[in-house]
Parts: sequence; structure tokens; C-alpha cells
Amino acid sequence: MKKETFKVTPWEVKGDVDYTQLVKEFGVSRLSDKLLKRIEKHAGELHLMLRRGVFFAHRDLDWLLDEYEKGNKFFLYTGCGPSGGIHLGHVGTWLFTKWLQEKFDCELWFQFTDDEKFLFKDKSYEEIQKWTYENMLDVAALGFKPGKTHFIVDTRHAGLLYPIAVKFAKKITFSTVKASFGMTNEDNIGKIFYTSMQAAPAVVPSVLKGKNVPCLIPLGIDQDTHFRVARDVYPKLGFYKPAIMHSVFWPALKGPEGKMGASDENSAIFTTDSAKEVERKIKKYAFSGGRDTVEEHRRIGGNVDVDVAFQYLRFGFMEDDVKLEGIRRAYENGDMLTSELKSIAIKEINEFLKEHQLKRAKAKKDVEKFLWKG
Amino acid sequence: MKKETFKVTPWEVKGDVDYTQLVKEFGVSRLSDKLLKRIEKHAGELHLMLRRGVFFAHRDLDWLLDEYEKGNKFFLYTGCGPSGGIHLGHVGTWLFTKWLQEKFDCELWFQFTDDEKFLFKDKSYEEIQKWTYENMLDVAALGFKPGKTHFIVDTRHAGLLYPIAVKFAKKITFSTVKASFGMTNEDNIGKIFYTSMQAAPAVVPSVLKGKNVPCLIPLGIDQDTHFRVARDVYPKLGFYKPAIMHSVFWPALKGPEGKMGASDENSAIFTTDSAKEVERKIKKYAFSGGRDTVEEHRRIGGNVDVDVAFQYLRFGFMEDDVKLEGIRRAYENGDMLTSELKSIAIKEINEFLKEHQLKRAKAKKDVEKFLWKG
Repeated sequence: MKKETFKVTPWEVKGDVDYTQLVKEFGVSRLSDKLLKRIEKHAGELHLMLRRGVFFAHRDLDWLLDEYEKGNKFFLYTGCGPSGGIHLGHVGTWLFTKWLQEKFDCELWFQFTDDEKFLFKDKSYEEIQKWTYENMLDVAALGFKPGKTHFIVDTRHAGLLYPIAVKFAKKITFSTVKASFGMTNEDNIGKIFYTSMQAAPAVVPSVLKGKNVPCLIPLGIDQDTHFRVARDVYPKLGFYKPAIMHSVFWPALKGPEGKMGASDENSAIFTTDSAKEVERKIKKYAFSGGRDTVEEHRRIGGNVDVDVAFQYLRFGFMEDDVKLEGIRRAYENGDMLTSELKSIAIKEINEFLKEHQLKRAKAKKDVEKFLWKG
Repeated sequence: MKKETFKVTPWEVKGDVDYTQLVKEFGVSRLSDKLLKRIEKHAGELHLMLRRGVFFAHRDLDWLLDEYEKGNKFFLYTGCGPSGGIHLGHVGTWLFTKWLQEKFDCELWFQFTDDEKFLFKDKSYEEIQKWTYENMLDVAALGFKPGKTHFIVDTRHAGLLYPIAVKFAKKITFSTVKASFGMTNEDNIGKIFYTSMQAAPAVVPSVLKGKNVPCLIPLGIDQDTHFRVARDVYPKLGFYKPAIMHSVFWPALKGPEGKMGASDENSAIFTTDSAKEVERKIKKYAFSGGRDTVEEHRRIGGNVDVDVAFQYLRFGFMEDDVKLEGIRRAYENGDMLTSELKSIAIKEINEFLKEHQLKRAKAKKDVEKFLWKG
């Protein structure tokens, strides 16, 4: 068997990710049927990303649900690294987060890690601030509960975060950061410190309320490393370890390797793309599971597992399982051609984006209402 | 000639410091007579710490005075690491800073580095916060100009400092911090980041005013390393390099090696020591330049250069040069005994402390007025 080579860090996802190996390496657990049933019992349904294994792994979710069932409510914490436009991969995680907020009636703390992106990217402070604002519009547009959703921007809310971050920092050595994130002596000292700023929001409500509040973090599995590093520190500081739910990566437009990223314009569909742009990108770039010729396709059928258009439907843009299953069968048995499959994806994505872009424009007026003012 | 061994870092001063070697290693300049004359011209006098070489070195003071003479006023920046009581060594630097504020009519930004002390010391966050408050009382008691003096506490004012600090951090590598401060892979990531928090206040007024303001930092020479590391970064971020004035270390009670420190109760005289306590400490611990027997002392005289009681008078507690010179002569020719010299030091220090303690008690009512509220 060929040895798969891939790399997953919070700043880089490369190669054909082997999730089984990742689960083992990171020490996380697969979401079991039993756990899914417990979620369904409380939520009244299962989100499509749970039904379809997009969110597929976790840490301490059993414990979190135990606490919930005892009446000890949890809050949600997720975030966004603002260095470019928002693409469908980001939106996916946040739509799932929104579902959790609605079903479990949670507070949500949403972190914009502008310090991280400034420290890790070759971009100016001003450019990162511009993206922070732009990204906030997208998050605001998704319709989180206003009274229960708090945006924190690392530099703007450093007064809240830094005093907590230093407590984590005191218990994390450079050796650990070196081993966990692959940092070197030539990395800047802001990068080295940064992980403590990402650990902090998981205890902000506990600090503000003066009592421990359970936390659930929905994230792409590349972000897990931060919490693996901070994991042992939480109890040392008297806090619960946060529970985590991990998603696989949304495939990049150009193919199933790596993840959708904001750095290559044509590797992703952005929330601000026009309907025409979406059509062009999917038609031109979306990696296809179709065959070389129509005849061959009709004869042996396409492969949905690598077909990006199909995967976008599966990951989030086709809610109806029966319809999705119909498309799979039609594509696999050659009844549906790539162009037809792509048309469906274009239509669904553009329907979502049309609505999103209207809400995003409206958010310009009131995005500030989400900013934490403590 | 015996090789002198000593160590000077912001967190440790050990051995018999060779200032000539330090000036060379750090790349600072001695305060020349010409520079002292320029200061005297503007101030109308020379502070005793300048007359007596307690403040003895500098960086870019010529430039700062050029700017001042062109009408471009500077501000002062100094600070305090709150991990214990304030001793005479601290007070010395601050009294000199106060003189500068009065003579040059400057704003003063006074940083309390509670994050530093928490990260570097085996003390709890709460204990450091307690010392921060206690130390603020001492600084407030010294009588800085209320409207022109701004206390900033790193954790409380992280909203102001952290966004600036990350800009420095982005341009400083772990290699640099390793070489400059002797850090290792086993140091915590807060320590590694910290130097950027100390670099930041030197540009705070420039950031707030949106235009470059010259800065002068009076400090003990052990703190120079922070600014040596940040030195090249200031212009890269579009700021002036701060000018610096360096003082030698106040000798520890027990002898001329190292510096007065807050960690050993009996190595220093604290601002909260009672008159009796001061008397006891100086009589019992103050390293004496006297001889083994009265007869020998009468015959060959004492050595003021190593005599701690004399040095405290010289460093700050005897303003009158003529009187100090009289004491020196009397001690050196054996007319004055150690007990007599110690009595003079006890009296002068206790006179200062009596007044200081009254002002310190009053400061409890209004120390908050100094805290920056931007």
C-alpha cells in the first residue's frame, strides 16, 4: 500500500488527508452512533453535516452532554482568521455552529484572530484590519442570535484576552510549541506566543461569571493543535477542558487534496463572488469525477467521492438526503453528466449566496451590535 | 589582572559589575561633559545623580537634545516590575525621572509590568496584582505631575499595548531573544513574547497623537537589553528610536556586588520599612568600608567606595556636595567611624522615608487618578 503523505497544521493543509491517521495522531475520537443519537434527542434532528460525517470527530462531547443533561448549559466558541475573503469552507463550520446555537440555545463567542493573521502572513496591519471588518460582515450575515453572540477581535479585545492568555503562556514552553506546530528559532516571538490567545476565549465566560461554564468548540480539525497544546493547562488554571467537534476539510475547487483556502482566488468560492463568477469557477475549475468522454461516462459512470460539485452539495448545499442520494445514483450510473451535476451545484450555491449577499449588505449597518463591549 | 565575572540581564544582576565592559558590550555611550553641560543649560542645574555619575551612560541623548532645542518636546517613559516591595534603588531612578519631568516639563508614561513579573516569577497572578497596587502607591507618592503622568498596567492596558506589541513581535525572532536574553527552549512562551510589551510604551504617545514624539527612557542599565533588541524595529515601524539614560545599580545592603533587589528582605531597604527597621538593617547588614579595629580605622581610614552607607548618601540621600565631600574626607582619614557614618545615613534615609510614607498613605485615596483612561 502506498504511504500517504499529508500535512495538517493550523496554517497549512497539504496532500491527501488520511482522517483515520489524523484521529489517531491527534488523539481525538470518532463521533459514535450513540453520541449522534444523544445529539438528535436534544436537537430534535441531526444537522446534515452530522448525518454525512462532515463533522466526524470530537473531544469530551460525552462529558459535555452529561453536563447539559444535568442542566449545566454550555457555550459555543469558534472563530475566523481574517486574512482574506470568506469562502464556502468557512461558512460551513459557521452554519453548523449556528444550528448548535439554535438547538441548544447557547451563547456564542466568536473570535477574530487578527493578531494571528498579522503575525503569520506577509500582510500589513491595516490590510488585516480591513479583512477583519469584511469577515465580520459575513459572520453577522449568517444570522446568529444577536443578544447571545459576542464578537471578540484579538487586538481590540486584548484587554479581555491578554490577561487570560498570559496564564496559559506561563504553562507552555517553546519546546512544546516547536514540537506541536513545527516552529523554529527563526519564527517571530508573536507567532510563538499566539496559541495562548486562541486558548483564552474557551474560558472567557467562566472568567466573566466567576464560575466554570462548559465550552464546545466546533472547528476544522487543523485547528485542533491549539487546544491539544492548551488541553492540560485548562484544569491547572481551574477550568474545564473545552469539548471540541471536528470537521473534515471542504475540498478545494481544484481537487480533493488539501483544503479550500482563501489565498488562491480560484481555489475557492467566496461569499462575495457574483453568480456569474460562481458559474465560471465551478465550470472551469471544479474538479470533476466524470470520465474523459461522454460515452465512457455513460458506460461506467462518474465518481462522486472526488467530484467537487457533488461534495459541495453533500457538505452543505443540498439539505434533502433523498434528492442528494438521487443525484449520486444518477451520476454513478452515468445517467447524469458532469455539466448537469455542476449546474445543480451552481444553482444551489448561488441561491444561498444571493440571500447571503443581501444580508451581508444589511450587516454594514449593525455589525457593531455583535462586538463585545464589556 | 583577575578576570571579572559578572552577569547583567533584566532579571538577574550578579557579581562585581564592570561598567566599562558593559558600556562596550551593550554599545551605549558614556555621558560626556559636553552632554552634561547641555542638560545643565536647559535644567538650570545638574541633578546629583548626574553630578556623581549614578546616571552615567546613554543612547541618542544628543539627538534628543537637538530635537528639544528645535522645539520638539520629548516624553519620559520608565517603569516598575511589581513582584515585591519598592526599595531605595527603585526610588532613585524615579526621583531622577521626576527631576527630568520638572525641568523639561514632560509627559511621563509609567509602565507596571505585571505580566512580566507573573511570567518570570514563581508567584500567583493575584500576588502580582497586589504588588502592582502597592507599587503604584509608592510611585504616586513621589509627586509626579498628575495631569502629565500616566500609569499603564500591562494586563489592564493590554487593549492599548498588545496591538502595538504584536508589531514589534513580528520583527523579533526567537533566535534574537535567545541570544540577547539567554532564553532556552524550556522557557515559557509568555517570557519569550514579553520584550515586545516593554518596547511598546516608547511609541504610545506617537500612536495616540498620530505623529512621532521623541522619547527618553531613564532606566537601570540591566533593562537596556529590551531596547537593544527593539532598537532596529522602531524605525522599521516608522517611529523614532527612543533615547535612553542608564544608571549604575544601587549597591545591595550586604555589599557592593550585584544590585539592590526586592527578593531578599535584608538585602534592601524598602519604602515601607519603619525607622527602627532601617536602623536595624543598616547597623546589622550595611557592608562597611571601615577597618577591623577602631585603632586600625583611625590609623589608615575607611574605604568609601565599598561602604554602602556612604554610597546611599552619594546615590541620593545627601544632596549637598560639600557636606558629602566632608564626610568622605573624615571617613577616609579615620576621623569618622563606621558607626558615625551609618548614623548619618540612617538619619537621612529615615527623614526621606517619613515623608514618603505619609504621602504613600495619602496616595491610597487618589492613586487611580494616575491610571491612563484612554
